[in-house]
Amino acid sequence: VGTEKIAVIGAGSWGTVIAALLEANRTSAGEVVLWARGPAHAASMQRARRNERYSSEVELPAGLAVTSSLEEAVTGAGVAIMVVPSRWAREVLVAAAPFLGRDAVVVSLTKGIEPGTLLTMSQVIEEVVPGRAVAVLSGPNLAEEIARGLPAATVVASARPAVASALQRLFAFPRLRVYTNHDVVGCELAGSVKNVLALGAGMADGLGAGDDARAAIITRGLAELARLGTAMGGNPLTFSGLAGLGDLVLTCTSERSRNRKVGLALGSGQLLRDVLAGMKEVAEGVTTAASVVALAERQQVELPICQQVAAVLDGSATPAEAVAALLSRELTHELAGWPPRSLSLPMPPL
Amino acid sequence: VGTEKIAVIGAGSWGTVIAALLEANRTSAGEVVLWARGPAHAASMQRARRNERYSSEVELPAGLAVTSSLEEAVTGAGVAIMVVPSRWAREVLVAAAPFLGRDAVVVSLTKGIEPGTLLTMSQVIEEVVPGRAVAVLSGPNLAEEIARGLPAATVVASARPAVASALQRLFAFPRLRVYTNHDVVGCELAGSVKNVLALGAGMADGLGAGDDARAAIITRGLAELARLGTAMGGNPLTFSGLAGLGDLVLTCTSERSRNRKVGLALGSGQLLRDVLAGMKEVAEGVTTAASVVALAERQQVELPICQQVAAVLDGSATPAEAVAALLSRELTHELAGWPPRSLSLPMPPL
Repeated sequence: VGTEKIAVIGAGSWGTVIAALLEANRTSAGEVVLWARGPAHAASMQRARRNERYSSEVELPAGLAVTSSLEEAVTGAGVAIMVVPSRWAREVLVAAAPFLGRDAVVVSLTKGIEPGTLLTMSQVIEEVVPGRAVAVLSGPNLAEEIARGLPAATVVASARPAVASALQRLFAFPRLRVYTNHDVVGCELAGSVKNVLALGAGMADGLGAGDDARAAIITRGLAELARLGTAMGGNPLTFSGLAGLGDLVLTCTSERSRNRKVGLALGSGQLLRDVLAGMKEVAEGVTTAASVVALAERQQVELPICQQVAAVLDGSATPAEAVAALLSRELTHELAGWPPRSLSLPMPPL
Repeated sequence: VGTEKIAVIGAGSWGTVIAALLEANRTSAGEVVLWARGPAHAASMQRARRNERYSSEVELPAGLAVTSSLEEAVTGAGVAIMVVPSRWAREVLVAAAPFLGRDAVVVSLTKGIEPGTLLTMSQVIEEVVPGRAVAVLSGPNLAEEIARGLPAATVVASARPAVASALQRLFAFPRLRVYTNHDVVGCELAGSVKNVLALGAGMADGLGAGDDARAAIITRGLAELARLGTAMGGNPLTFSGLAGLGDLVLTCTSERSRNRKVGLALGSGQLLRDVLAGMKEVAEGVTTAASVVALAERQQVELPICQQVAAVLDGSATPAEAVAALLSRELTHELAGWPPRSLSLPMPPL
């Protein structure tokens, strides 16, 4: 893995923080380039040495280059880090493809599923720029906390162990513990479904359902996440790890989680369009919910919480109806339906 | 299971709420009796129809009997519900034993391990009153929220399926979903270890470590809980369920969790004796921590978070040193050490 030049594609809060930390912790000669879609945004960051739009508290290190030219950012980069919202990922990747070297490693930091195709980000990458090593960085990581140097842990997943190890060293900032994993699709599914579940947890909170209800949603939500994730080929163990349970807990409980905030507003009676109009950044769960439900239908697994969240988002249920529907399901054994018939191994995360 | 007479042994907040709900939701003739250790406390509850000491917002239903006589409470009871702190459980049970019928079912609601013997509550029950059917009720349930009728889910575990089913019906209050399980010791271990982990999560919060760190502690903490629990014969699936993950998440994140509050105070620099002096009720994690570490030594499993919590409690480390020690451990694969050699099945909760 060539780390002399690193391109960070996407200048939202997470992309900005990662680019700043990669530059600040660079141990060898080389460069880190941050790409922003808008030329005005890139120019403003170059000038102010801050991303005033998404991450104003982070000072950009002097050596960090900022550009709105994909050619400039990607040409010669040994590592290309994709951190754009899922609905724009393909478009940006197609535009970057002509400049991407054959040996470049592509790392996805995006937590979502492509609308329509229902592909994960690594699958989009493999389709658009085939033959490159692909990896995913995912875990309970709030951009704002990582920027402040608060302690955190995360997971780098790649099917190629050498790539995972190289990226583990690359992202091992002083206060960030990086664990390796080989389960790319499991980490991606977990990172996508947890946003949908956080909308549900937020709705319950907005309705005043209480901490017990939230804990139950997280627990049964992890079962949904693991059910879909294993059906898609993920490793059951991934879902009990940092990229699964860890990120799910963070997103469902933190005051700073975007998807939880949207759910909270919906549960308090606000309309979806008003909530979204008031947000600067993308809450991935809002687009992911329908994709997750479609994936579940294709895989024939039941995801009652995700289905209720999707129903609220498409206007076919109110948050109160959705929460009531979840509470009225039949009494059962906790492990009922486990393991699903499609699996021969003893099933873990319930 | 005879449910004509039900004894609730222990009038803390949880015992009081459960007794009130059992009486309020009684569908057949019979009685519910709440036992309080202190005669004055019992008399005050009888008179005021409230437990002014531990649960003042709950009105006791007119039919609920309150007594400080174990003979009166237990004689003829088909179900005896034990909800006294772990360190006093044996003493109370020994005193109740002469009055307990041969066919009585004993249900433990206590989340802790007996100091010294390192026995779980069901093991204490089996030792003191052998031959009785034993069950455990455990899950993410704050007494205050259950009292207010907020929605929640919980688990009843018993090795005897008919007992679990009967208790499932008994505790199925309008807003409480009860799942059955057969893994008594797994539920007990989960309910005990989570209190220790909540002390750790609270300490990190008190030190200002942030939401990412809390999510990492919960995730790696669940791995510890599952490691010890499976070594003790628990079912790996239990730890990903409501009594495992669900209760862990609740206890580590809720503003109302006693153990988290103690951790928070320690992390903010308060001394343990001052914190405990200011509490009316028992934070079980404070006594459980040393027992959990002793159990881990006996089972030869590593529990780094619990060990650091125990070190803070016994004065051999400060909260800051404990958190720093956890963060400085070696970088590794997320599944390193899994499955442990003692297990042949694919191990689930990481």
